[in-house]
Amino acid sequence: MGYYRHHLFFCTNQRPDGAERPSCAQCDSPRLRGYVKKRLKDLGLTGAGGIRANTAGCLDRCEEGPVLVVYPEGVWYTYVDEDDLDEIIESHLIGGKPVERLMLPEPV
Amino acid sequence: MGYYRHHLFFCTNQRPDGAERPSCAQCDSPRLRGYVKKRLKDLGLTGAGGIRANTAGCLDRCEEGPVLVVYPEGVWYTYVDEDDLDEIIESHLIGGKPVERLMLPEPV
Repeated sequence: MGYYRHHLFFCTNQRPDGAERPSCAQCDSPRLRGYVKKRLKDLGLTGAGGIRANTAGCLDRCEEGPVLVVYPEGVWYTYVDEDDLDEIIESHLIGGKPVERLMLPEPV
Repeated sequence: MGYYRHHLFFCTNQRPDGAERPSCAQCDSPRLRGYVKKRLKDLGLTGAGGIRANTAGCLDRCEEGPVLVVYPEGVWYTYVDEDDLDEIIESHLIGGKPVERLMLPEPV
């Protein structure tokens, strides 16, 4: 088993005003990552062997954002709000069943 | 296969002066991550299906730092300089053979 059972990376990149590509931070990703971090802590799921929710720089899937990726399984998600993130926590991270409606497409 | 063949996350966290735990950024991790990013680009290894080197917030293995993790395989490394990172690129990312001398211990 890896150091973390699930390791989440939220893109929290903010491009300068007027940039051509959208920024995940425009969709409130820093705050929503903080929501997940706190929720995992409240549920007692953090620490080595548990689940960690990290910030990350641009994950280069900007047009599909806001994006996060869950490793080691390599499942990519988009999300809108706390409800979406609660569903990822409960179904995927706790229940082991990825949330298909929020998953990004695999490369073809 | 996942969206990236290898996805690297470098802790680039900088704590305030006087913090009790060390910071990976004190070991020049933002610059060294930039070195790997550029090296991968020069080698033509970036993009979907390729290799990406991201910045990340604190990965919570501060005492073992500076740290980076390679997913989906979940191999954790420490490193000192460009030579160490070149070895990770050539042996692990290109050659498929992780660099044991730089790997962090697995949890017991």
